Amino acid sequence: MYEGAIQELIDELGRLPGIGPKGAQRIGFWLLDQPKEDVERLADAIIQVKQKVRFCSVCFNVAEDELCRICADPRRDRRLICVVEESKDVPAIERTREFRGLYHVLGGAISPIDGKGPSQLHLRELVARLADSQITEVILATNPNLEGEATATYIARLLKDWPDISVSRLASGLPVGGDLEYADEVTLGRAFSGRRAVD
Amino acid sequence: MYEGAIQELIDELGRLPGIGPKGAQRIGFWLLDQPKEDVERLADAIIQVKQKVRFCSVCFNVAEDELCRICADPRRDRRLICVVEESKDVPAIERTREFRGLYHVLGGAISPIDGKGPSQLHLRELVARLADSQITEVILATNPNLEGEATATYIARLLKDWPDISVSRLASGLPVGGDLEYADEVTLGRAFSGRRAVD
Repeated sequence: MYEGAIQELIDELGRLPGIGPKGAQRIGFWLLDQPKEDVERLADAIIQVKQKVRFCSVCFNVAEDELCRICADPRRDRRLICVVEESKDVPAIERTREFRGLYHVLGGAISPIDGKGPSQLHLRELVARLADSQITEVILATNPNLEGEATATYIARLLKDWPDISVSRLASGLPVGGDLEYADEVTLGRAFSGRRAVD
Repeated sequence: MYEGAIQELIDELGRLPGIGPKGAQRIGFWLLDQPKEDVERLADAIIQVKQKVRFCSVCFNVAEDELCRICADPRRDRRLICVVEESKDVPAIERTREFRGLYHVLGGAISPIDGKGPSQLHLRELVARLADSQITEVILATNPNLEGEATATYIARLLKDWPDISVSRLASGLPVGGDLEYADEVTLGRAFSGRRAVD
């Protein structure tokens, strides 16, 4: 509906996930109003991300060097590996300050419906890391949904070959600050089956 | 929480209107997964919009030449001017196919709370256009909110100096496909006061 450049920008913005036609139009006109330097900084950040970001050769987290910041940190506990689906799960766990080990980013979850099988995940590399005798525990922190559960079950079975490594799964239950009344039955069921003795 | 380039991109995306931190993170990682050409096309569209887009010297709509597409179109009815707040209101009206005249984009509305007075709108230029004796009707299509109404009232008073030009305001009333029960009382009140004889 608009002329050339503004319509092209709106079209490009509309392709981004979570941005609809109205949002793309709003952002397009907002950018048109911004100082040239700010707009160029955004364009540059977009270009840089493809040029600079690569994946850690050990854990497949996003990195700017051969190793990611976590794998390169000598203070991390190298006996623990937390297995996650995506790089963006790493900062979520880091924010909890509950985990001081290393990560392993699978690059997704097993999902037959999306044609994603175990061979498309970084599982061979996980197994290779287990050959390192330092590792004592693997925490499966895949998402608490169908695909994540299937992936965790698959990995847990793989890890049976290493009887010395303890394998755990993040607890499921009621979210803190949530309301029992509004919990779905699956979550509430998990909260029951995973109940802990009060001491 | 992330390293260098990806965090910079997420920060830049988080500045865009309507995009929160989670949305920025989602878009950032999505861009990281896209082919280089697609990502460069987005960056280029952002740069181009600042370089190419300017404003029509007659109506202040977005344009890539001296005149916007509508002002340059010889088939438009030059006797009618529709006054709107922003460029993005133009395609909304164009889509109705009800109007074949020209536009005048004010660049906002009178809003004392935002420190925006009549002198910051393209009102002097509107008055200059009225000197053209071709014009017979001005349609005030500012938003049906406090600022838009104030702006329409202000312009309607200005236009009293041209008694030959008829001035109209878009009708307020129930939205088509809406439900009377859910209409707010102001809208329903307007629908009553603006009721039309059935013929």
